[in-house]
Amino acid sequence: MTAREVAIVGVGTSMFGKQDATVEALVADAVDEALADASLAPADLDAVVVGTVFAYPGTAHRALRAAGIAGIPITTVENACASGTLALHRAAEAVRRGEHGTVLALGFEKMSDWISGPIPTDPRDADAAAGLVLPAIYAMTASRHMHRHGVRAEQLAEISVKNHRNALDNPRAQYRGDLTVDDVLASRPIADPLTLLQCSPISDGAAAAIVQAGDRADAHQPRVRLLASAFESGAVWPGPDDRVWNAELIERTTRAALRGADRTIADVDVIELHDAFTIGEIVTTEAMGLAAEGEGADLASSGATWRGGSIPVNPSGGLLSRGHPLGATGLAQLAELHWQLTGRADARQVPGARLALLETMGGSVGGLSGNGCIVAALETW
Amino acid sequence: MTAREVAIVGVGTSMFGKQDATVEALVADAVDEALADASLAPADLDAVVVGTVFAYPGTAHRALRAAGIAGIPITTVENACASGTLALHRAAEAVRRGEHGTVLALGFEKMSDWISGPIPTDPRDADAAAGLVLPAIYAMTASRHMHRHGVRAEQLAEISVKNHRNALDNPRAQYRGDLTVDDVLASRPIADPLTLLQCSPISDGAAAAIVQAGDRADAHQPRVRLLASAFESGAVWPGPDDRVWNAELIERTTRAALRGADRTIADVDVIELHDAFTIGEIVTTEAMGLAAEGEGADLASSGATWRGGSIPVNPSGGLLSRGHPLGATGLAQLAELHWQLTGRADARQVPGARLALLETMGGSVGGLSGNGCIVAALETW
Repeated sequence: MTAREVAIVGVGTSMFGKQDATVEALVADAVDEALADASLAPADLDAVVVGTVFAYPGTAHRALRAAGIAGIPITTVENACASGTLALHRAAEAVRRGEHGTVLALGFEKMSDWISGPIPTDPRDADAAAGLVLPAIYAMTASRHMHRHGVRAEQLAEISVKNHRNALDNPRAQYRGDLTVDDVLASRPIADPLTLLQCSPISDGAAAAIVQAGDRADAHQPRVRLLASAFESGAVWPGPDDRVWNAELIERTTRAALRGADRTIADVDVIELHDAFTIGEIVTTEAMGLAAEGEGADLASSGATWRGGSIPVNPSGGLLSRGHPLGATGLAQLAELHWQLTGRADARQVPGARLALLETMGGSVGGLSGNGCIVAALETW
Repeated sequence: MTAREVAIVGVGTSMFGKQDATVEALVADAVDEALADASLAPADLDAVVVGTVFAYPGTAHRALRAAGIAGIPITTVENACASGTLALHRAAEAVRRGEHGTVLALGFEKMSDWISGPIPTDPRDADAAAGLVLPAIYAMTASRHMHRHGVRAEQLAEISVKNHRNALDNPRAQYRGDLTVDDVLASRPIADPLTLLQCSPISDGAAAAIVQAGDRADAHQPRVRLLASAFESGAVWPGPDDRVWNAELIERTTRAALRGADRTIADVDVIELHDAFTIGEIVTTEAMGLAAEGEGADLASSGATWRGGSIPVNPSGGLLSRGHPLGATGLAQLAELHWQLTGRADARQVPGARLALLETMGGSVGGLSGNGCIVAALETW
């Protein structure tokens, strides 16, 4: 590999879920595992990029110092639910552009310390004040897809069934369950038609990756290349629109990543994407080009996105079941795909996976204020 | 100029102080002024990097959308008090490395909405819980300098007198006053020996800069080049140490920036640096190489760092008097230096200023958890 190619030479995560572990302990679990995976030590790192949303200033430095990492540039980035993915993207760009040779991308969130229900909203956000928080936006998206494309409530629920079933084989997942469609539909309503089991949970966790210039990559390290990553934000909300929220942005970002990777969606073997809510997975598979608009639910119902299907989506259990510790999520997605591409996903393994896509949507707490999507293409060789 | 040289082609700021203006209004003031200064429109921007500390997710997107900016990558970075400076550094690296051609660097903070006294601390930060918050650390630094180097309380106060006097000519400054040393020493004690007028205030404000690849820079735009910027973090705190907190980091970062710029400290005409507390300015001038260790107070007492002296420091009034809206500060420092280098600093003008240094220290709220320093060298031609 050349200096400007980007290798992901190690990944690691903590357990996910509501847990007593400190941020320091969660971060150490992720960082220590990633360094060991890459056969590297803290002194081999040139820089760190951290994704986190709600941490106090200094939390990242404190946790990194406890893990033996200090004295190098530490950049903290925030992009809502895609903060960890933005850390990955920034680390990859730093390597690709020759700024640094070996960069730790780290994401963490300790949500259970201070949130028990929905994420608190900014009192100055007019969207949020009007009730347009994320569960409401996703619920409206679901209603529109049901009305317009004949999607059934049972099809929404099937996404949750699939992802919880995938998580049965993921020992680090927050929730594992052999649920039925009826179980999902019978759970507590959150924002009609979305029920509790169709919403990603409050989670604690950390995830990390070592991003390295290709010419430094070593034959003993795992062989995963980040072919391309793309980062885009939404246009000004146009008001009445023919498409649901985020569809245009996900489509634009996916196309940019595939163009950068010189691959097509048909080449992809496995995907981790942003299923913060069940309808999110459906809309995202459509926007990524796996199904025509309105046909994402049928794609899932056909079994194609299940493990053993033609294009498995969220084999880890996704945000719905592995959990959604905001800053950690993107790098947890990366870890799953890394394990898939290197044949280390145990019972979750997608046979012969060589090309993977990762998609995370950062939407703000008041739903429409801003959104930033990242899509990355990863390949083994 | 070449593609990989970095031009700062426009700057802008809001007013600084505790004010009723919304984040949207503050950001619009800064962004509109910076775009007009650069003779550019929102559509000319390729990306945005935002520095802010305490804003809810989505705040930056919301304010940018109100200013007509959306649909391009928007990265939010946090580095405590140096968050705006990190936005500048990231924007400059993006241009220098060919990632983007024209980048808006934006910093903002609306502190008065929710803080009336000291910045709240993280209950999980052991340093903060032990009382080792920033005013305490700076106070201990002051006590040590007084004990070890014979610095007098009056010399600490002189820094505040100087910076408040500089701000008399800065119509955007938060506090302007023709204070005496006695006024400063008689103000309310905060952390002995530091009194209220030796501590930077809670502020609201925004500042922005347009960072552009050299080959795009236009003859009609202001001629300021960012020769180099350096970003470093502190080593693991070694316990008993012969130097005060941050001195090693500031020295290391300044040397890296000057090396990158191929200039020496003796070449510098004007400096904006991180005077969050009076002792901070003294220690920083020492660590930057303007005075030997322990002689920074005498340097100021000699008049050298006053306007009209050999190396004016904080002609804007600095954090102490212009104000310290965390995310905005670094870009407010940049704006002042930009005006100085282009002969637009009105009554604050340092005659013939051609080379400027900017220094900001990001220290976390619990003092020792982490710190990240940025130093940038700017030149006109």
